[in-house]
Amino acid sequence: MGEQQLDQVTSDELVYVPASECRRLLGASLPPHDVAAAFAAVARINTLYMIARAWSGHLGTSFSSLDIMSWLFLNEMRDLDKGPGACDIFFSSKGHDAPALYAVLIGLGLLPEEKIDHLRRLHGLPGHPHVETPYIQANTGSLGMGISKAKGMAIANRLAGRSRRIFVLTGDGELQEGQFWESLASAATRGLGEIVVIVDHNKIQSDTWVEQVGDLGDLTAKLSAFGWHVSRCDGHDIDAIDRTFRSLDGITDQPKVVVADTVKGKGVSFMEGPAMKAGELYAYHSGAPTEEEYANGSRELLERARRLFQAAGLGEPGLAHGWRPARREPRDTQNLISAYKDALVNQADRHPGLVVLDADLVKDCGLVPFAAKYPDRFIECGIAEQDMVSTACGLAKRGALPVVHSFACFLAARPNEQIYNQCSEGSKVVYVGSLAGLLPGGPGHSHQSVRDIAALGSIPGLLLAEPALEAEVHALFEHLINAASESSYLRLVSVKWPVPFSYPAGQRVEPGHGWIVRDGRDVVVIGYGPWLLSNAWHAIEGLASSGVTIRLVNLPWLNRVDPAWLKEAIGDCRSVVLLDNHYAHGGQAEMLAATIAGLALDPVVQVSRLGVTELPECGTNDEVLEYHGLDIASLTEALRAAAASRFPGREASLA
Amino acid sequence: MGEQQLDQVTSDELVYVPASECRRLLGASLPPHDVAAAFAAVARINTLYMIARAWSGHLGTSFSSLDIMSWLFLNEMRDLDKGPGACDIFFSSKGHDAPALYAVLIGLGLLPEEKIDHLRRLHGLPGHPHVETPYIQANTGSLGMGISKAKGMAIANRLAGRSRRIFVLTGDGELQEGQFWESLASAATRGLGEIVVIVDHNKIQSDTWVEQVGDLGDLTAKLSAFGWHVSRCDGHDIDAIDRTFRSLDGITDQPKVVVADTVKGKGVSFMEGPAMKAGELYAYHSGAPTEEEYANGSRELLERARRLFQAAGLGEPGLAHGWRPARREPRDTQNLISAYKDALVNQADRHPGLVVLDADLVKDCGLVPFAAKYPDRFIECGIAEQDMVSTACGLAKRGALPVVHSFACFLAARPNEQIYNQCSEGSKVVYVGSLAGLLPGGPGHSHQSVRDIAALGSIPGLLLAEPALEAEVHALFEHLINAASESSYLRLVSVKWPVPFSYPAGQRVEPGHGWIVRDGRDVVVIGYGPWLLSNAWHAIEGLASSGVTIRLVNLPWLNRVDPAWLKEAIGDCRSVVLLDNHYAHGGQAEMLAATIAGLALDPVVQVSRLGVTELPECGTNDEVLEYHGLDIASLTEALRAAAASRFPGREASLA
Repeated sequence: MGEQQLDQVTSDELVYVPASECRRLLGASLPPHDVAAAFAAVARINTLYMIARAWSGHLGTSFSSLDIMSWLFLNEMRDLDKGPGACDIFFSSKGHDAPALYAVLIGLGLLPEEKIDHLRRLHGLPGHPHVETPYIQANTGSLGMGISKAKGMAIANRLAGRSRRIFVLTGDGELQEGQFWESLASAATRGLGEIVVIVDHNKIQSDTWVEQVGDLGDLTAKLSAFGWHVSRCDGHDIDAIDRTFRSLDGITDQPKVVVADTVKGKGVSFMEGPAMKAGELYAYHSGAPTEEEYANGSRELLERARRLFQAAGLGEPGLAHGWRPARREPRDTQNLISAYKDALVNQADRHPGLVVLDADLVKDCGLVPFAAKYPDRFIECGIAEQDMVSTACGLAKRGALPVVHSFACFLAARPNEQIYNQCSEGSKVVYVGSLAGLLPGGPGHSHQSVRDIAALGSIPGLLLAEPALEAEVHALFEHLINAASESSYLRLVSVKWPVPFSYPAGQRVEPGHGWIVRDGRDVVVIGYGPWLLSNAWHAIEGLASSGVTIRLVNLPWLNRVDPAWLKEAIGDCRSVVLLDNHYAHGGQAEMLAATIAGLALDPVVQVSRLGVTELPECGTNDEVLEYHGLDIASLTEALRAAAASRFPGREASLA
Repeated sequence: MGEQQLDQVTSDELVYVPASECRRLLGASLPPHDVAAAFAAVARINTLYMIARAWSGHLGTSFSSLDIMSWLFLNEMRDLDKGPGACDIFFSSKGHDAPALYAVLIGLGLLPEEKIDHLRRLHGLPGHPHVETPYIQANTGSLGMGISKAKGMAIANRLAGRSRRIFVLTGDGELQEGQFWESLASAATRGLGEIVVIVDHNKIQSDTWVEQVGDLGDLTAKLSAFGWHVSRCDGHDIDAIDRTFRSLDGITDQPKVVVADTVKGKGVSFMEGPAMKAGELYAYHSGAPTEEEYANGSRELLERARRLFQAAGLGEPGLAHGWRPARREPRDTQNLISAYKDALVNQADRHPGLVVLDADLVKDCGLVPFAAKYPDRFIECGIAEQDMVSTACGLAKRGALPVVHSFACFLAARPNEQIYNQCSEGSKVVYVGSLAGLLPGGPGHSHQSVRDIAALGSIPGLLLAEPALEAEVHALFEHLINAASESSYLRLVSVKWPVPFSYPAGQRVEPGHGWIVRDGRDVVVIGYGPWLLSNAWHAIEGLASSGVTIRLVNLPWLNRVDPAWLKEAIGDCRSVVLLDNHYAHGGQAEMLAATIAGLALDPVVQVSRLGVTELPECGTNDEVLEYHGLDIASLTEALRAAAASRFPGREASLA
């Protein structure tokens, strides 16, 4: 993106508590409850520091879990010094709380202190847990897998004659996932008493109260009915946490669950769940604090840490300083989610049978205006994607037009068979997956949806489409709702992006047909979506001075192409570069390359493909694009090579 | 396949009760309980007839549900005469019991009587329910989706101002699926009192007792804890069924579940669950009765029907006769599942860390010998694929080598995200999906796995392989267990097939490389798996007399190809035909065609692809292959055309 389009956001000074101060605290002769409380207070400061510095992260759920995590790591986890392969096991099944866990591990010296400046950065600390990080025992971020994994670990330990306790932290919204319940019974049947699950029961999921999204009912009764030993305690009361764990020590042949009543955002008054006003959505699930929020939040957390240090006779906690890096904020961006918000309401105005389903992402999926205008047609399914899709299937069978939402990574994979089953009924459902593709790079690979085209693309009767511009959101959604007879999947990139081209006036929408973004003669580049096409556009623009003219084509259909249209789009060009915001295997480019092979064009066409070829890295958007070779510079090199292959004598002049 | 390889199995005479006799019963002035009992007795006869005639079907679960279904359709379902769009709704979530439902619908005149001869036949009555059949309200066969669908139907009905009751029949093994539990809470929160779920609690799942596979514990306590009204009754006692439904009439604002205690195989003494001896597996879940089993079973069922007719003063029930068609039983077949049985035990003997996980398909997946030899390393997960995969993930993280089993259709789709998550940890798990591909054609599209390559193929660190021969099962499994560092998916065709070629002695196993099955010069055909390659082999053999020589290549790797190997395999041929036992979109052929495009071979190569292009049809194997153009005759035509395209002057001599 051109620098002229960017505003620099002022960087702020941030503070954290260095590891040396944690060592001082841990080395003092103090009652363990006092140490844990002060350690948690320090970890909250450092969590806020990391998330502010990274410009994104999950504050609310990190804060709700920190007293529990601190107690566990200071007092329950045995043999931490023997390393992650030999100590007791802890992992978070919800995974959003990774910054809190990092703060604990850094405080204990189990992660290098300098990592505090590398949350959500390339080769740093990923936005969601990844086993490449020391003491991270499971990849999580997609919900509900924790107990299943713990069972596998427990069985492997038993087979190997190892005896280790396994602590699994879950969310409460997470309990809406079927896999959680699926995983319970056999743990009880097998008597896996080494498993202790702690439910961080902070009562709020992404957007609002769990009770409103998918009421958990009598949780103790439910969990007991599945054969688990159930305790309940205040998850911010260190005494209570200790008492509860002590009461579990004697229970060795039954899996145990502690329902810990917590407060989302605990520790910063205005971030705490109960501070949320009626009718509001919770504001601190993800994202970054503003300058003012950081200043006020940090002050509150520091005050508490000072109070606890002083009460313990430790004087003032020492502080270190860091800077929040300036963030480039492009102006004049295309915001596809915002466009979708309007498109959805527009279509809903015209179609009384249009019903919207959501899986706890009402804000991120752009559903707030619809839900406000048509509350009776808005179905909040909670974090229960399989149930959501089959519910939509039932709705469609009885005449409604369901539009189903989640993040692309979850929607394509979790209810994968349910979507196939729905399409097999020949009914019509529109699926909308946001947060599609490699960006944003911060949350990490659990959220970077680069496999959804492959996972859904072969389903007969399911048309996949991805817009590059706000205007194309409207055009495609209009088509999917009104013209298409089959089901469809609208793939939406969520990052705002400055796009250097516009939607052609009067463009006809026809599955399998795309349009020329800019014309050229030497090479044809085909791709889709806002940043992929924009980066290609800038690369092409940069190469124009070398005399290479490159045609850029947008094909917004991900699993359909009309061979005749493709032949015409290629024209006389004999070098084609196919781009994917997706794994190179199974994306649009593979379909196009295979179609080109079927055309048997003579003289032969040189075809190359660029896409993601390994598990996506976590990092800033710029870092991630560069790493995966999809930034402007990498694309420039690839296009230069493609052009050179057509002009064997001209490599030098093109370089 | 050549006729000389076939034994003809003698056809048997079969009997059924014609619809006219059902009309006589329904028209008689008799107490409704007597009518329902006699109707169920007749429906059992006709269910046995259909399954025997189709040579496959689910007897056990059909018989356990028939008294409930009969009562429902005769007495609870309102407005049946108004048609399937306007009457009360019934569907079976388990779906295996489709023959029972067909028998009921035929008995009521809601399906044409002649359909009784078309179970599991092309354009007949599918092996699992499909909405194209009148009065079938949902596609099922993959488990756990029923309540979610019912909720969608209920909400759509409410939005449209329609008031209809919705009856959903589930299995009890089915309750192991997480989606069942995921779907419960919101039905209670929304007060969907129009939903009545009946659990056909016959205590046996595919292979053995539910209690042994995945104990349901205190089912009433569990279901009550989720906010449902729970009743329990004897599912074969018509009086009790009636009383139970009457007790539900007054409950209108709470969803209701009836746990119906039933007997799997009810009505035929030797098929009934309790007749199963200790240590045996249940023999009548799927498949067809032998001649003797049919004769004895039929006699028992007829005796009961006669007794009930006579007691009701209706005299003898009239009978009609049909013939079980002869079945071609090829000799000298390749049985990949049987080879896998041995291969698994062999590897387990060498690897003490090898652990096997299964999702209630111990027989179908070839796990009986392993489970007998290594009971401590055998983990029966029940019908809980997501839990199974994440359990394997935990096992692998702690050093075990898990080998994970299910039918390909379920394994690739249901735990799709869990497999991706496991691979993202960089650990090694071997997945084995049986019943892969288009055949057998009888169970229908829920079981015809023609989407698994696409659904799994793009996962980095997951290698997909499919053997064509028993020897290749051993060779590939050896490689996946011992040589491959990454995770893998072994795709196994379950139908036995006479294969006209053998595995080359000394063949080296290398991902991305295949081998030449028979050589030729004019056209290259690439494919995989036993019947696909065999059909191609016979087509090529047939064309040899026209002077066309065709090279047939087996590439057992489904998501990897070495471009250099591919170039060599194509050689000087300028016509390539790529075959898929999978959807043409997203299968091996698309990968190969795209790779060929990347090779930019000059002179250009003509590439054509043959695979499944629409939802698979249900039918006999021959019917299904012909319908989808993958039988020998269709392949012959396709290869003839491919050869002709290379010899433009020779079309006539090739015809």
